[in-house]
Amino acid sequence: MERTIPAEEGENLLEIAMKAGVHINASCGGRGVCGKCRVRMAEGTLNSSTHPSIGEEDYAAGVRLACLSSVSGDVVIEIPLESQVDRSILRRSTVMSDVDAGDIDEAFLGEYGREPLVERYNLTIHRPDEQDNISDAARIARALASRPGCGDPVVLPLRVMRGLGAKLRDAGWNVTVDVVMSGRKEITSITKGDVGASHYAIAVDIGTTTVAAQLLCCDQEDGKGIILASSSDYNRQISFGEDVISRIMYAGKRNGLRKLQEVVVSTVNLLIGELLEEKGVDRADVSHIVVAGNTTMMHLFYGIEPKYIMLAPYTPLATAFPPVGCGEVGLETAPHARLFAIPGVSSYVGGDIVSGVALSGMTEREGVSLFMDIGTNGEIVLGNRQWLLCASCSAGPAFEGGGIEFGTRAAPGAIEKVRVNPVTLEPMILTIGRRKPLGICGSGLIDVVAELLLAGVIDRNGKFSTGQQTRRVRDGSNGREYVLCFASETNIERDIVITEIDLDNIIRTKAAVYAGCSVLLENGGLAFGDLDMVIIAGGFGHSIDVEKAIVMGLLPELPAERFRFMGNASLGGARIAAVSRGFFEKAGEVARSMTNIELSNNAQFMDEFMAAMFLPHTDGRAFPETMKALKNR
Amino acid sequence: MERTIPAEEGENLLEIAMKAGVHINASCGGRGVCGKCRVRMAEGTLNSSTHPSIGEEDYAAGVRLACLSSVSGDVVIEIPLESQVDRSILRRSTVMSDVDAGDIDEAFLGEYGREPLVERYNLTIHRPDEQDNISDAARIARALASRPGCGDPVVLPLRVMRGLGAKLRDAGWNVTVDVVMSGRKEITSITKGDVGASHYAIAVDIGTTTVAAQLLCCDQEDGKGIILASSSDYNRQISFGEDVISRIMYAGKRNGLRKLQEVVVSTVNLLIGELLEEKGVDRADVSHIVVAGNTTMMHLFYGIEPKYIMLAPYTPLATAFPPVGCGEVGLETAPHARLFAIPGVSSYVGGDIVSGVALSGMTEREGVSLFMDIGTNGEIVLGNRQWLLCASCSAGPAFEGGGIEFGTRAAPGAIEKVRVNPVTLEPMILTIGRRKPLGICGSGLIDVVAELLLAGVIDRNGKFSTGQQTRRVRDGSNGREYVLCFASETNIERDIVITEIDLDNIIRTKAAVYAGCSVLLENGGLAFGDLDMVIIAGGFGHSIDVEKAIVMGLLPELPAERFRFMGNASLGGARIAAVSRGFFEKAGEVARSMTNIELSNNAQFMDEFMAAMFLPHTDGRAFPETMKALKNR
Repeated sequence: MERTIPAEEGENLLEIAMKAGVHINASCGGRGVCGKCRVRMAEGTLNSSTHPSIGEEDYAAGVRLACLSSVSGDVVIEIPLESQVDRSILRRSTVMSDVDAGDIDEAFLGEYGREPLVERYNLTIHRPDEQDNISDAARIARALASRPGCGDPVVLPLRVMRGLGAKLRDAGWNVTVDVVMSGRKEITSITKGDVGASHYAIAVDIGTTTVAAQLLCCDQEDGKGIILASSSDYNRQISFGEDVISRIMYAGKRNGLRKLQEVVVSTVNLLIGELLEEKGVDRADVSHIVVAGNTTMMHLFYGIEPKYIMLAPYTPLATAFPPVGCGEVGLETAPHARLFAIPGVSSYVGGDIVSGVALSGMTEREGVSLFMDIGTNGEIVLGNRQWLLCASCSAGPAFEGGGIEFGTRAAPGAIEKVRVNPVTLEPMILTIGRRKPLGICGSGLIDVVAELLLAGVIDRNGKFSTGQQTRRVRDGSNGREYVLCFASETNIERDIVITEIDLDNIIRTKAAVYAGCSVLLENGGLAFGDLDMVIIAGGFGHSIDVEKAIVMGLLPELPAERFRFMGNASLGGARIAAVSRGFFEKAGEVARSMTNIELSNNAQFMDEFMAAMFLPHTDGRAFPETMKALKNR
Repeated sequence: MERTIPAEEGENLLEIAMKAGVHINASCGGRGVCGKCRVRMAEGTLNSSTHPSIGEEDYAAGVRLACLSSVSGDVVIEIPLESQVDRSILRRSTVMSDVDAGDIDEAFLGEYGREPLVERYNLTIHRPDEQDNISDAARIARALASRPGCGDPVVLPLRVMRGLGAKLRDAGWNVTVDVVMSGRKEITSITKGDVGASHYAIAVDIGTTTVAAQLLCCDQEDGKGIILASSSDYNRQISFGEDVISRIMYAGKRNGLRKLQEVVVSTVNLLIGELLEEKGVDRADVSHIVVAGNTTMMHLFYGIEPKYIMLAPYTPLATAFPPVGCGEVGLETAPHARLFAIPGVSSYVGGDIVSGVALSGMTEREGVSLFMDIGTNGEIVLGNRQWLLCASCSAGPAFEGGGIEFGTRAAPGAIEKVRVNPVTLEPMILTIGRRKPLGICGSGLIDVVAELLLAGVIDRNGKFSTGQQTRRVRDGSNGREYVLCFASETNIERDIVITEIDLDNIIRTKAAVYAGCSVLLENGGLAFGDLDMVIIAGGFGHSIDVEKAIVMGLLPELPAERFRFMGNASLGGARIAAVSRGFFEKAGEVARSMTNIELSNNAQFMDEFMAAMFLPHTDGRAFPETMKALKNR
């Protein structure tokens, strides 16, 4: 796809792309650090600095980093596939989680009731006469009082009062009202006549990388489930940095916070527009939106400074957000639509985790579960119906492709499955969408490490074993490496390799997650064997091969039946909360009852982390089956 | 005072004056009905219609009605004294009520506590560290929780959250917070450091004619009373009509509601500015404003359509108003200042009456009291600690000078006291400010009627007796009349007279009030003699001669010691509510516990009204002393 974008002389290429809505990968927020924003000058020239990540040959071929380039005249820029963001993979994963959603929804709505956060009632109001001439506002309150939960005082805001007298009389005293039923009860809209009970909510999971949304039916009569449509897209903030830290740094720049707020809101607005169009739903019939996201995303979405999240001792400005009108953050809804957020716990355990934990059912069970959401940060929660401990381990972005030479997000062309023949040491790879490979995503990396270990290509330190006779293992520019695909087989015309540096990054990541789980268990006086259930949430979880994740020591060695995959549990929780205020309250209780264990500068964590820097672990007794397999190789 | 005002050709003179803030009396809202907006062309000419109220001679002398005149070129206009609005009288009455205020305030604050609707706290917040890194918002809530009444969840709005992180750290974790303590608790502002406990509230009584305001000290340590400064002014809405009905009609015009809202808010803003300047108080230190007013005034102040107040069955849009930021109605305060309104009961029994009743103490007593506020409408409340009945009788504007040929508001030059020598039938008059007379105000009218009756100049029907030999009684252009002042003695160069038509209007007014009281008493199963106390509120009450008011049958014939005068009880109640949330809640209870009796189209009222159309009353047995005096004349 070609686009022509006007630009001023001297403008930065990455910023031009951002402004124009052209996404180029940039992990570091445009600081010339990550080397991900590779582009190629097809015609014309750019003023660009060199960068260690661009070899001499590539540089000669016109490869540049967008963040280090500025325009000086007309230029044709090619964005290589591996620098692009592709939306199709997101749609796939959303559709997958929809399949399971129906059963989960039914169970929760059975328990917590299908009573949306905002109710819509059609009211026939007693026409005033001389015996009964209380105020219009009091008449509405009286007509509402018979509805369940509406007996308390209900606030009628000035905005709704204005013009109400004529509206009630024009409507012949029959109106449809939307009432916020959580916290302070409030009438958000009054519409003439009976517009039908149908009204809609939208649940949104605001992830650092992706934003997913679902259009929900609040109608109590409809037995067909609550999800009417689903959509998702990359968070447009990606152009400002891949992880929360780069976003927080960008927010600290002049107008940075405002810009980040605008682009995430515009992402949500895009999804809202798509959902409504798909189902032909009127914007005015969306009564509320429920969002869940990590603490940084929530700060940026609400336009609140996130700065102190990344500075010790890591204090967020807020973990709960007051209910406001959707318009107050810039969402394109009718003015009356109300915005709710699932509350979080701490700077690195946000509402997305609370939402998922509430949805996982672990807080209802006697047995102890471990909830894991592995992304850039590994967020983990341990507990049962009596107690909950949570922590976040800075896993690093390895599983999302960060810090890995050919790492990439799970997108078409990403290598997601790898097997290594133990005899020939040749790999077998599968890519997402079965396209020509352009990089390796998280699940592929887990496979690579586990398979190279099982095949004896690497040792338990994550170093290449000496004396292996294969053309696949060679000395590269960054030390020893294993070639997964030769250039001719790829879509990027470069060999796709995994280096010792990559292996080290992956091991650090898995060690951080495993160590975090160990610390929570020790704090709970438990061991991995005591876990009834390991719940793996997040898009990443979907594609993990549990067996390989155990071999490399990311997951504990437990029987397969104790593992559960939840997909986008954050979106799922927001969805249930939108149509069940009982569940929304429950999520609040979950947030309040979680005890946050800070792992940074935590000596116990450092010990566990060092112990986990082995494959699968320094303490082989925790991985008896894996150790047996390694001995037998 | 001279002013030069630019105007377009063809513009209406009354509207030019309104725009320029020059007040000209206009009782009918500029409809050419009342004939009050008399002006004189000193130079140049106006395009004006003639009007029955302007005699040929006056017309020849350049007298015109402003509402019927438009400009066609440069013109010098004189506004006669009787058409002007003078502020000095208001200041006097405010100062008078201040004198008594201290004792009342002390008694109420003793009972309900000196706990303002918005509290200001200085908080030292625990600096975050690794052991304690809950969110900034949670830290504030925790620091607040130890303060009385702050244990419940306190809402921290987005507006306050934004930028809070840097503010807390710059402030070294010592901040001053304002917290709304009534209804949903909410932090309205957070300021760096200890700005001192002193914060201020403003109480405002928004009357149809006048607006009065007081600057109040919320500081609990200060034992010097709560009133720091007082001010008042005519409600700028006067230019759009003198009574609530003309205002409601004006509000129905294009942009009328917006205009009326703007001018009343600008009146309040003027007073706020004066109060703050007088005491050198910083605008940012005003934490809240409490308003009380009749139901129409409240609708106009909040910008809510008042139309249905004047249409049967007289349903207001609201009698209670949600707490909002002062800025939402246009008040010039800091953005965080909160606005509260004393709730009302019905279209014609508003928050001003509720405020006064709560302040009167009648709801604490076992004995039954009658509360009266006589203005354009006579609002009356009957009851004790167990029950309250209320009603409004459309008394008509006679006591405010409306419908009376030489009627005027209580302003300098208004005749406020009258005695008629029973032998010579010559009058003795006193004016406000002892100026040359320009008209008769309400208390003067009561005196005139009572004195003319006692002197035998008029009979019990309110008609001039035949056969009186005095130059004072003569045939005028509107029938028989009594001359109070000859032109040469006045400031308006016309004879000031009281006509039979005037007498009829006054009798209708007093009959409506008395009949309203009778109906309430009958509904309570009581008679006038059962009243423990008659409480007279409002500026008018201050100047009434109770004895004369009894003679004419406006007030019941009871011993003098049972009458109490409260002055501006509406302002008083708003004042106590501002610094005592317990009293604010109490006012809400008073409003809810009042049973409104609708008198329009009420057969019982019509019977009582007809019976009261005599002087003092058809049933002379209710006025034994007066009847004795009449027999002895």
